Amino acid sequence: MQKTKKWRFFTPARVLSIGFAVTILIGAILLSLPISSQTGESLRFLDALEEATSAVCVTGLIVVDTGTYFNHFGQIVLISLIQIGGLGFMTLATFITIMTGRKIGLKERLLLQEAFNVSTLEGLIRLARNVVLITMGIELFFAIILAIRFSFQMPLGRAIYYGVFHSISAFCNAGFDLFGGFKSISDYVGDPTVSICISLLIILGGLGFTVFADVPRLFRGERTLLHTKLVLIASAFLLVVGTIGTYLFEKNNPGTIGNFSEGTKWLASYFNSATARTAGYASINYETMTQGGLLWTIILMFIGASPGSTGGGIKTVTSFVIMLYIINVISNRDNTVIFGRQIARQTIYKALVISVMAVLLIVFSTMILTVTENVDFLRLLFETTSAFATVGLSTNLTPTLSDTGKVLIILLMYIGRLGPLTLAVALAARQPDKANLKYPEGNLYVG
Amino acid sequence: MQKTKKWRFFTPARVLSIGFAVTILIGAILLSLPISSQTGESLRFLDALEEATSAVCVTGLIVVDTGTYFNHFGQIVLISLIQIGGLGFMTLATFITIMTGRKIGLKERLLLQEAFNVSTLEGLIRLARNVVLITMGIELFFAIILAIRFSFQMPLGRAIYYGVFHSISAFCNAGFDLFGGFKSISDYVGDPTVSICISLLIILGGLGFTVFADVPRLFRGERTLLHTKLVLIASAFLLVVGTIGTYLFEKNNPGTIGNFSEGTKWLASYFNSATARTAGYASINYETMTQGGLLWTIILMFIGASPGSTGGGIKTVTSFVIMLYIINVISNRDNTVIFGRQIARQTIYKALVISVMAVLLIVFSTMILTVTENVDFLRLLFETTSAFATVGLSTNLTPTLSDTGKVLIILLMYIGRLGPLTLAVALAARQPDKANLKYPEGNLYVG
Ligand SMILES: [K+]
Ligand SMILES: [K+]
Repeated sequence: MQKTKKWRFFTPARVLSIGFAVTILIGAILLSLPISSQTGESLRFLDALEEATSAVCVTGLIVVDTGTYFNHFGQIVLISLIQIGGLGFMTLATFITIMTGRKIGLKERLLLQEAFNVSTLEGLIRLARNVVLITMGIELFFAIILAIRFSFQMPLGRAIYYGVFHSISAFCNAGFDLFGGFKSISDYVGDPTVSICISLLIILGGLGFTVFADVPRLFRGERTLLHTKLVLIASAFLLVVGTIGTYLFEKNNPGTIGNFSEGTKWLASYFNSATARTAGYASINYETMTQGGLLWTIILMFIGASPGSTGGGIKTVTSFVIMLYIINVISNRDNTVIFGRQIARQTIYKALVISVMAVLLIVFSTMILTVTENVDFLRLLFETTSAFATVGLSTNLTPTLSDTGKVLIILLMYIGRLGPLTLAVALAARQPDKANLKYPEGNLYVG
Repeated sequence: MQKTKKWRFFTPARVLSIGFAVTILIGAILLSLPISSQTGESLRFLDALEEATSAVCVTGLIVVDTGTYFNHFGQIVLISLIQIGGLGFMTLATFITIMTGRKIGLKERLLLQEAFNVSTLEGLIRLARNVVLITMGIELFFAIILAIRFSFQMPLGRAIYYGVFHSISAFCNAGFDLFGGFKSISDYVGDPTVSICISLLIILGGLGFTVFADVPRLFRGERTLLHTKLVLIASAFLLVVGTIGTYLFEKNNPGTIGNFSEGTKWLASYFNSATARTAGYASINYETMTQGGLLWTIILMFIGASPGSTGGGIKTVTSFVIMLYIINVISNRDNTVIFGRQIARQTIYKALVISVMAVLLIVFSTMILTVTENVDFLRLLFETTSAFATVGLSTNLTPTLSDTGKVLIILLMYIGRLGPLTLAVALAARQPDKANLKYPEGNLYVG
């Protein structure tokens, strides 16, 4: 009894929160030094902190241009932070969550079985190694294709460097680029090779750990986990709907895709749909997007990638569960069932709480920005959603933000990457109730 | 067995939905006829439908000016629709929900006991009669004060007419006025008598049926229901915070309160805080409000009045439950407890679902408006939230909306007044699951 009640400071949530914060601080110090800049000047610490947070939280909102401000050293610091923040998180988070110093009992074994299709600690380690190898493999494969593509327009050495940098940055859903002038990859809006390579990297990176682990089953034609099915269906659905929506809102807008050929219009719409969840590479100018297009992109950003992936947002499965549940309520069913499986009340509950917390965070941050910045509301909402969902798209606003605005964006990226629930648990002074004290229930009427 | 499974078409939810729709249609026909207008012209049916929906759903969004377009007949039609929509709903809804043709068993008796502090059908009828009498009493009392105030600036007959009209309209949280020029009660922004009378009517009307029923206990110093406590605390809290917020956002804005004396600034801020939840009388010009002030007002509108009242929104208790629950999650507690009472999981669940449905409805409506209207996003969001929460404040947008926009606003008012959950249940083709078919639970990771 005494043993289970022992107060541990290093809970998984705290290890993650502190680990992220320390990595960000080290990165910020390195990026602020003269050794990181092309001109040899020092970066203001707040700006360096914003850059480091943006990299570790794989967001991509930037205050100085990655390609023209930083030298090779600075750029390598950035891409390292991205790889640590992206891949490191994916594997580390799982390790810490499951290990946390305890030996694996029957319950954990069943959990491992269900979650990762392994039943021993050795199996888990082997699996994590496989995930690292698969990641490296995917990044290498696309780095080569991109390097070949870039070699047509630049020296081979630089083309390889660009290939590797953008492959890592895209797979980690970080959205950093080296093309200069804050213009992201907009030079390649009509280039199928670059657009498709980058978007495939984004999509693969956004599927998440558990899906990777389940892929072998898929290939062997076995029954996959419910989670894998939902992730794949939701991702495909959102990609298609996102593309059509973007096309409809923007097809007549010369500020974005209005002047392109029909094919390029669809390619750019598809790319926006992929990048909004939550990569952050921009192939169009969001400053001149229509209001409907901006709102549509905000919704895609808000939904984000899949759980346990390099992307942010409230997550595909979360949105899907809420959608299923609402359809259920409307059709007067008690149980939320999909593919013959019932979704636990607890899961629906968590999905709803996460969404409400996310909306509250974004709305109140935007409210503060309406006071500190002299900018249109919708652009501010776009910026805060982009930061919270670690997307990195911007209506070219980030560099001109006030200091308060920058601090807010830094906090949003950090909270968004860890997840508001994880952070809340990390900050809580007390351990979860085990005693489950019962009070009499009060009767309330809501709504 | 056969008997309980009998399919009934006239469920409470359906009676309400159809009753509202029929009342609106009759009202629309009357208002569209030449007998309703001062000039003897006919109102376009879509506009008449908007006016009738706005009145029955006690919203107050108007396309023609109530004071200058309609004659006495039209105005009396409007105020009758308001009284039916406001008071009628309050009592009718309760009656129907509890009676629905069944005799009162032990379970219902306990429910009645807990909900309304009565344990028999006779007790309930007596109580409903009391509510009607209290309502009439409050409306009469303030009608006299307002009539006296108005008699200083107009003939006595007209002053009495104005007193009665605005007293009913304010208590029902309808927000219709006779002062002309779409300017609502802005002539009285610095007038304490009118401001305080109207705001008290708004606040009393927004407390809800169950609180009225519980008032005698309060006066006898007995222990009140948890619901009553929460409603009073939440209402007071929101009123104070709403006032301070409005003051802070607007104190330097000459477009709203910036040029007023300090006292009038606070009076206007207080009035905005009261009217936003969800009366709709405007004492300032919302077209020239700051972005922060508009967002602040949108949040107040979204929260709205208390359950079972004449006001709309997701409701005070709903917001309060969510706030409590989030604080709980952050402090790692399992049970949501207030005043020594535990809030049922089911209640928290419902509060979360209502909020998410409301956000989805408002966001998607606003998205459609960004295409059909050529207006700034924040003003559109203000308009849709105002319609959904049956508030009736507007940045002077309603009359200039496109036909699609008007239809959307009509639908939002109707859905908002009935509540998305009620309407969903009414539309459902099947009765709620009684069998509670069990499926194996699937494992999902959200957020
Ligand atoms: K990103
Ligand atoms: K109203």
